[in-house]
Amino acid sequence: MNENPSTPTQAERDADFLADWAVHSRFGAVEGTNGVDRQAASEADGQQRTWFARLLEDHGFTVERDAIGNQFGLLEFVPGAPYVLTGSHMDSQPTAGRFDGAYGVMASAHACFAIADELRADPSQARFNLAVVNWFNEEGSRFKPSMMGSNVFTGKADLEAALATTDPHGVTVAEALDAIGERGDFTAPEIASYAEIHVQQGRSMEEDGVTIGLVDATWAAHKFGFRVHGAQAHSGSTLMADRRDALLGAARLVVAARELVDEFEPGALHTACGELNVYPNSPVVVASEVELLLDLRSPSAEVIAAAHASLMGTVAKVSEEVGVDIEITAEHSWDQNPYGEDGVQLARAVADDLGLTSARVMTVAGHDSTNLKDTVPTVMLFVPSVAGISHNLEEFTKDEDLLSGLHHLTEVVRRLAGGALAG
Amino acid sequence: MNENPSTPTQAERDADFLADWAVHSRFGAVEGTNGVDRQAASEADGQQRTWFARLLEDHGFTVERDAIGNQFGLLEFVPGAPYVLTGSHMDSQPTAGRFDGAYGVMASAHACFAIADELRADPSQARFNLAVVNWFNEEGSRFKPSMMGSNVFTGKADLEAALATTDPHGVTVAEALDAIGERGDFTAPEIASYAEIHVQQGRSMEEDGVTIGLVDATWAAHKFGFRVHGAQAHSGSTLMADRRDALLGAARLVVAARELVDEFEPGALHTACGELNVYPNSPVVVASEVELLLDLRSPSAEVIAAAHASLMGTVAKVSEEVGVDIEITAEHSWDQNPYGEDGVQLARAVADDLGLTSARVMTVAGHDSTNLKDTVPTVMLFVPSVAGISHNLEEFTKDEDLLSGLHHLTEVVRRLAGGALAG
Repeated sequence: MNENPSTPTQAERDADFLADWAVHSRFGAVEGTNGVDRQAASEADGQQRTWFARLLEDHGFTVERDAIGNQFGLLEFVPGAPYVLTGSHMDSQPTAGRFDGAYGVMASAHACFAIADELRADPSQARFNLAVVNWFNEEGSRFKPSMMGSNVFTGKADLEAALATTDPHGVTVAEALDAIGERGDFTAPEIASYAEIHVQQGRSMEEDGVTIGLVDATWAAHKFGFRVHGAQAHSGSTLMADRRDALLGAARLVVAARELVDEFEPGALHTACGELNVYPNSPVVVASEVELLLDLRSPSAEVIAAAHASLMGTVAKVSEEVGVDIEITAEHSWDQNPYGEDGVQLARAVADDLGLTSARVMTVAGHDSTNLKDTVPTVMLFVPSVAGISHNLEEFTKDEDLLSGLHHLTEVVRRLAGGALAG
Repeated sequence: MNENPSTPTQAERDADFLADWAVHSRFGAVEGTNGVDRQAASEADGQQRTWFARLLEDHGFTVERDAIGNQFGLLEFVPGAPYVLTGSHMDSQPTAGRFDGAYGVMASAHACFAIADELRADPSQARFNLAVVNWFNEEGSRFKPSMMGSNVFTGKADLEAALATTDPHGVTVAEALDAIGERGDFTAPEIASYAEIHVQQGRSMEEDGVTIGLVDATWAAHKFGFRVHGAQAHSGSTLMADRRDALLGAARLVVAARELVDEFEPGALHTACGELNVYPNSPVVVASEVELLLDLRSPSAEVIAAAHASLMGTVAKVSEEVGVDIEITAEHSWDQNPYGEDGVQLARAVADDLGLTSARVMTVAGHDSTNLKDTVPTVMLFVPSVAGISHNLEEFTKDEDLLSGLHHLTEVVRRLAGGALAG
């Protein structure tokens, strides 16, 4: 089958991918676990970016960074033509799995390595050029909000505001990027289309025996930042009736958010509070201020609206009963948000042609493709994740699924480079 | 009345006290408020200690620091005799009132200034020597636990363990004390008796029109450190039923602690959680670990025991319903704990003699005298605090009450120096 002895076989390409994947997972590895701690613009993120740039260059790509630290590997076949872009993000949550995001970047790179070999052999097949991208700060754990790199890239966020964003130690994005040498001045060329692959952050595909998820929409969401204002007091001696306890108010919101789920059908609503900060956070002081982030997510905009109304009622009730003021400091919502049907159909056709099982799935989590799909034709793919474990050191996807995803993404990028989804 | 023109009148002494008090309140002052931020061994604490040492020296006292940073001002009248010790602490909670602790140190110093003048004029009245103390880290906000200086002084805590204690930034007590030059090698002489005055951290004295509180006992207490163990997960996509949310478990404990109060008569139980820390504390990650401190306090040991039993039932219920493990990492309890009746009667006699209204009160909060009373005869006094506001920038006590307290404490120390309460 391998007519040109200098071109790797599929088995050799698969082995190369798994070998690079193994090296890649060492950056920011958490000792004694299978996971990583590689927050945006951390030392480990910088080391991985340096290694990844070398990998791209070794395969003939030119590496560039833009002003918000998005890392691009570019290969031009058709001078002046737009680029097919494919990638994801290599940053992680603290103590997270090694697959999330990083799998998508590595699969994108290896998909492009294969297609680059083909187009070098027969440049007439290329209608567009190829670019791999490692988006900056998709996770939003160190610097908020999430999807910062693709937000700025697609014009949804302001560059200067993003660069001035600080982490909990007061370090700005600009300083952190400069510290790892990853702030550049590259202006990306015109993008023809975008493809991204990610492990599913849920367990439906594993349960249904589906290898390729054809992502057709994101869930609706309503996200809140709350600041609960109470009054500092001695936590021992102050009469209970005199207290205005900001932490009690916040705790009641956290409990209420969980109880809200039970007002709807099972699976219809997800709620969460993952971040909560107390001031002055001292053992003998009633807290005067607590900040917390609280999310509502649902496939149904009607459920979000009903949950929102119920939550606002709870906020009023807690405020009155605890004697605190509850301020909404940030609010961000979106409806159920479809991916382009053309991209879904392209991905389905590729799965059928490769003999891979596929099914339409929605994504609850946000991805950089959520931004890109509003700008260019986009394909978003999932591979299964064992038990749906995500943002956890024990996140796991089997090698056979990683490779099936790589094969599928390679064919999608091949077709995009040949002109699929082009207007 | 002023027979010796070189000796200040009472009015001059009062004015001197209020003048020094005004200077003292500038150290660590929080701009635009009446309060201070002067945590243990902070820069502001160091500046105030330097100023306080100069004040003591200007009045003829010798200033020494022991190995845990307790600051002593010593004046010897009877070579080799034990010392009457009086003082409190100058460190504060973050953004706290200017009275708490600091009033007691300043009143102790000025009480000793007056008595020193008398004993210099007639040394035959002295049975004991005089010492003022500024205890290190009573508050326990930066370095835990609270009352560190008097814990070590009375042998209730180990010196080396205390010196190795770190703040949230990893700075040890030893390093912090060295940074402000307040770690010494002084070994305190034998102590004959101890007196402390403090603003009441409650509003009963103000409501009852009492000027001098005769502290006769501390409330019983049971304090817990809890660590709630859950599992990291994507806070959007993970099915609600799959979550083991440590923050939800912690929030339910905070809410349950408040509800516990309603199982008892009004005022019979105080509960609180003032400190709570979330890991990884990221907006899109279900928390895997939350640490919180939770206190039960009551004048009744029976109420504490019943509240403890109820809380343990709640811990088991929350653990099962939320799917988290709840570990008790620290536990510390004490029964209702009396002050020596001799000291209470001495304080009552002084109030009667000075024509000041007085009443027996219990203290809910801990004080350094809680440690000293277990070692030497001790007198603990309160003055009223407006509305009982405590650990808050707006804490306030009227000048007339500050001066009445100073006069009372001066007479108590005078009698102690003359041999009162001596075995």
